[in-house]
Amino acid sequence: MAEKLALVGIGKIARDQHIPAIAGNPDWQLEAAVSRHAGVDGIDHFQTIDELLEKRPDITTVSLAIPPQPRFEYAAKALKAGKHVMLEKPPGQSLAECYALEALAREHGVTLFATWHSRYADSVPALKAFLAERTLKRLKITWKEDVRRWHPGQEWIWEPGGMGVFDPGINALSILTEVLPYPVHLTGATLEFPENRATPIAAGLTFADPVGAEMSADFDWRQEGPQTWDIDVETDRGAAKLSLGGEKLEIDGEPVIQGANHEYANLYVRMADLVKSGTSDVDLSPMIHVCDAFSLGRRVITDPFEF
Amino acid sequence: MAEKLALVGIGKIARDQHIPAIAGNPDWQLEAAVSRHAGVDGIDHFQTIDELLEKRPDITTVSLAIPPQPRFEYAAKALKAGKHVMLEKPPGQSLAECYALEALAREHGVTLFATWHSRYADSVPALKAFLAERTLKRLKITWKEDVRRWHPGQEWIWEPGGMGVFDPGINALSILTEVLPYPVHLTGATLEFPENRATPIAAGLTFADPVGAEMSADFDWRQEGPQTWDIDVETDRGAAKLSLGGEKLEIDGEPVIQGANHEYANLYVRMADLVKSGTSDVDLSPMIHVCDAFSLGRRVITDPFEF
Repeated sequence: MAEKLALVGIGKIARDQHIPAIAGNPDWQLEAAVSRHAGVDGIDHFQTIDELLEKRPDITTVSLAIPPQPRFEYAAKALKAGKHVMLEKPPGQSLAECYALEALAREHGVTLFATWHSRYADSVPALKAFLAERTLKRLKITWKEDVRRWHPGQEWIWEPGGMGVFDPGINALSILTEVLPYPVHLTGATLEFPENRATPIAAGLTFADPVGAEMSADFDWRQEGPQTWDIDVETDRGAAKLSLGGEKLEIDGEPVIQGANHEYANLYVRMADLVKSGTSDVDLSPMIHVCDAFSLGRRVITDPFEF
Repeated sequence: MAEKLALVGIGKIARDQHIPAIAGNPDWQLEAAVSRHAGVDGIDHFQTIDELLEKRPDITTVSLAIPPQPRFEYAAKALKAGKHVMLEKPPGQSLAECYALEALAREHGVTLFATWHSRYADSVPALKAFLAERTLKRLKITWKEDVRRWHPGQEWIWEPGGMGVFDPGINALSILTEVLPYPVHLTGATLEFPENRATPIAAGLTFADPVGAEMSADFDWRQEGPQTWDIDVETDRGAAKLSLGGEKLEIDGEPVIQGANHEYANLYVRMADLVKSGTSDVDLSPMIHVCDAFSLGRRVITDPFEF
């Protein structure tokens, strides 16, 4: 029988990704939407999470597709009410609140899934397998997109806790931490803040790799024209290039995967598995690198940004 | 028999605190100093950690009193050589590198102690016991000191990874995370950066408390005259004031503890216990709050700072 699910936050990502992914998965039945603004045709619509929890006690699972700043409060209320919870990335606006949610889920015996949708891109398992059998020499992340195109009018990304260019950048870091056979750590960062904004528009990161590989990431939100979401790796036995955010993989210049975007579909498959097995999946390593970049990064002020 | 110890970094904190604390503890024998500049009379002096590890394989334990920026490299080399390692606070310049050191210590079966000296101040256990039996209503940290007096000429504190005013502020956060009966998380921060420096000179933090107490911290490095290292708490049954960084405790206005500074002496007692029992002590919660403050904080530019 399908689990009854409520989706909180009916914005761009909910309409583009969550709603189609839920609709295509027989394990889930979308029963309610929570949003101050928009509803979803044909299902219950509530203004607040409190109203949802009060009026629809039969709903077992809450998926949060709201910005990170208010997410803790919603998630904590749902977990305390005994609901399974699925968090959009990043899982919160602070690491400590994510650890607190993890503890709440344990305490209430429910599933918490801190999702990283990019990890579910078609090429990620193949890149991981490629790296598992080789010695890495060089890894370069290039994640450059046009913020006006992907976040039109979203002021929250420029507010503290909105992470700025790390909002897409953390997707790359979620792939990095998934495909590498060992953990790495940041050694330096430069963060470019528009003079009128609280979060960065560009960032350059360098990492220390335990086997001595050169490793860096270049995030930029000012890229017009073609968009770049690439990870290039060179190893002792060949090179690989992940592109289109993980849809495509080339090994030694030959295309080996040319997939499509199944990321959110895969997330809801994974969530169903976690609920069935009574487990949680909360890996904060991508967010730890972001917090490290903010604390270790050198700040540079750049041109003001307006949508 | 005393464990043979090497002290790395012979600066102000080594001379003021580490060397006397080691000298007063029969469980430790200071056998070598590693420093590019100063040595310690009467014991071996090495320029580099590599030289120490090569020339004195009989030394079992390495205590690192160097700035956080280079600490990972030293600690990793010592752990890989099978030495127990003691880290000054903060334990590194990034969270990820601290997790990596924890993994190395496990792998090599040695003790890693990420020290927080302020937790070993005389008043901390009493404040913890006071809070354990009461409901917190309000907690206010005021940590204001004169950077010129306590960090004369230390340029590293103004470099990325040096943390700025969080270098003393993390001491208050290490007490906070020790005395509270539950974890809390940051909800907002304001960071004041001198226009010519990479780290903040002042910070204001607010926290969410799970029982609804009001909680904040005020860090400032520009305080001349009397210095303030206070934590004020109000509960359902009385108030307490920790002051002098933890040397002194008042309950309902009455002095209950007027101690002295035994912090580093206590750290070396604790390290001896950890080595004897074959365990590690790596609690990163104070540093997680600092990283959260950097990622969530609103940056404000203020007057330039020169020593």
